Amino acid sequence: MKKFIAKEYSEVKESVYSVDYSNIYDDFINFGVGDPDINTHEIIIEAANQSQLNGHTHYADPQGVLALRQAICDYYKEDFEVEADPSNVMVTMSGTEAMYLVLRTIIEEGDEVIIPSPYFSIYTEQVEMPHGVPVIYETKFENDFNIIPSELEKLITDKTKAIIVNTPNNPTGAVYSTETLKEIYEIAKKHDVVVICDDIYTIYSYESKFEPMIKFDKEFKNVISIASFSKDYVMTGWRLGSIVADADLIKAMTQVHEITVYAVPTICQYAGIAAIENRKEICPPLAEEYKNRMYLAYERLKKLKYVEVMRPKGTFYLFPKINVPGMTSKEVIKEILEKAHVNLISGEVFGKGGEDCIRIAVTVNEDMINEAFDRIEKLDIFK
Amino acid sequence: MKKFIAKEYSEVKESVYSVDYSNIYDDFINFGVGDPDINTHEIIIEAANQSQLNGHTHYADPQGVLALRQAICDYYKEDFEVEADPSNVMVTMSGTEAMYLVLRTIIEEGDEVIIPSPYFSIYTEQVEMPHGVPVIYETKFENDFNIIPSELEKLITDKTKAIIVNTPNNPTGAVYSTETLKEIYEIAKKHDVVVICDDIYTIYSYESKFEPMIKFDKEFKNVISIASFSKDYVMTGWRLGSIVADADLIKAMTQVHEITVYAVPTICQYAGIAAIENRKEICPPLAEEYKNRMYLAYERLKKLKYVEVMRPKGTFYLFPKINVPGMTSKEVIKEILEKAHVNLISGEVFGKGGEDCIRIAVTVNEDMINEAFDRIEKLDIFK
Repeated sequence: MKKFIAKEYSEVKESVYSVDYSNIYDDFINFGVGDPDINTHEIIIEAANQSQLNGHTHYADPQGVLALRQAICDYYKEDFEVEADPSNVMVTMSGTEAMYLVLRTIIEEGDEVIIPSPYFSIYTEQVEMPHGVPVIYETKFENDFNIIPSELEKLITDKTKAIIVNTPNNPTGAVYSTETLKEIYEIAKKHDVVVICDDIYTIYSYESKFEPMIKFDKEFKNVISIASFSKDYVMTGWRLGSIVADADLIKAMTQVHEITVYAVPTICQYAGIAAIENRKEICPPLAEEYKNRMYLAYERLKKLKYVEVMRPKGTFYLFPKINVPGMTSKEVIKEILEKAHVNLISGEVFGKGGEDCIRIAVTVNEDMINEAFDRIEKLDIFK
Repeated sequence: MKKFIAKEYSEVKESVYSVDYSNIYDDFINFGVGDPDINTHEIIIEAANQSQLNGHTHYADPQGVLALRQAICDYYKEDFEVEADPSNVMVTMSGTEAMYLVLRTIIEEGDEVIIPSPYFSIYTEQVEMPHGVPVIYETKFENDFNIIPSELEKLITDKTKAIIVNTPNNPTGAVYSTETLKEIYEIAKKHDVVVICDDIYTIYSYESKFEPMIKFDKEFKNVISIASFSKDYVMTGWRLGSIVADADLIKAMTQVHEITVYAVPTICQYAGIAAIENRKEICPPLAEEYKNRMYLAYERLKKLKYVEVMRPKGTFYLFPKINVPGMTSKEVIKEILEKAHVNLISGEVFGKGGEDCIRIAVTVNEDMINEAFDRIEKLDIFK
């Protein structure tokens, strides 16, 4: 049936994230996957279960259960001083569908979307699906992977429709300052383009409280905020997220959502209400745990020869630069996998600017982090 | 932000399905929505809950949890003698995403897809999203809304990529015979086009056991079978479905799925395993209940002046023809809503061929069905 597949999907690319070597190496340690190892809190599981026993097993409103949209408004107001109405909110299949919906709804053939690199690898594919054109802005290791707004601005053309901003950043771990976000917002307003903020690691901001760019855009004219329960509540399996934006755009995106998935599972939406309501109990221990792991991995990385690493600022990813003489970063990763049985992701997966780097997801506990580095530092290549 | 919306999504169409008049009429009865009123079985809810307490709160394989794909293979084998391997199966966000994924993955600009009408209204939108062209084949009330394969064949051109077949059929309630399905399959093979079977009302086939067309296509060369838990297990809120098809096509569709939703919620997939394993306990009472309601509504409809109705064959929809002198079916529906407080859906929502008909979803219990018809038959227009 291969011949029936449309040209653009006829080549299958294997996903780098879903590779699992635990059946090859008994003592395998996975720094590859951005799936927090901690399970979803039982308060959330219990609320989800109760919702079903109470009969909420039917279709949800395609825009999202009203009580959840209200809870999301309350969260944006209490935590970020952002005033949104349930008409400004839609519930999505996590951040992935949220970004897909925004891009699918606004992009016309040839529209350009500026993406700071290194970037979460599906952004470019999502831009290309409706025949948009990704325009890459390279951030640099030497500059802590920060965005320099005046440089970003130079990439804006007549065809620019949107800029994607992801802070705290996957894969670099960078956290942009409030000043940077404000400047990017002013640039977007000046050129009348949209900033799509992938605000999905909000609790993992270690040196300053996360502030979303949308707080500067009180009428939601140029900024869209995507939120996700996947990381902030360790709910990756529940596929739950949301978009805060202008009400007309929400309506248009809801239409696209209706013909792709119809609505988000009702059980997941009730889980989301419990998550938000109990966030002050659920989130701080998670942020603390991953921060500790980040600093541990950072300290261990710093001691490795040929490795440079930025101080942890946010997310649960470290993105060190590897300069083992005579070896590419891909060769180093292969050596580490085969000799130390530790999986890492090559930085080039996240764009050309990441090719000298590797991504380490600290989604394993401190003992395993230590064990992994004990093995890595014994390798000949680091001697 | 309206100006940023792509042209194709700039006009918002209100959904006819999600209209709720219960806040206008205290005694409102809703025959409009295809959401079974019965709640999901507690065996399924309990299994979903246990899966979460056991730690399955993380990302699922984008193609679907292997144990669920295996259960789907077992179901196709035991119930329909279809031999599939887990590589032939993917798990989707119900039938909606399944159809979207198939069309998105195979359609190139200008490809034609033949859709028997009246049809579930999102099919045409899903064909148009990747710039395909819906080609409508009109089935007729006089012919019990059956497909006549030789007539369908005449619509095949060089540009035809696929034919959508939905039996038992929403909205008409028609059930195509095994002979008809076999003939359509032979036509597809002869012209080398794909038949996409929306096999989502399988337990609601009242005069003969449902048989999927894919059983004729042992190598999955021309037929794709979409299944859904929404109707057969009254799990509309869980958004769970699957596709059985050629393994190469499954791989390509999984890629599209990864950049739109990534994976189906893990909790819903474990619910699905329990559903399939317990189907012999869960499904027969559901089929019995909706069959009884269908016959009750059928008997009541038959007594109404100016109404012709086909004997119930499948689904939980009746699709009678209304011929009130001097009134369009839309005007009749308005009168019934305003005077009897009963909501019905105009047949024209399902394509031009349905414009003299109305769709009745018997998703309310027998007492309410009787109450609704007691009110309707007293209306002046039926005297």
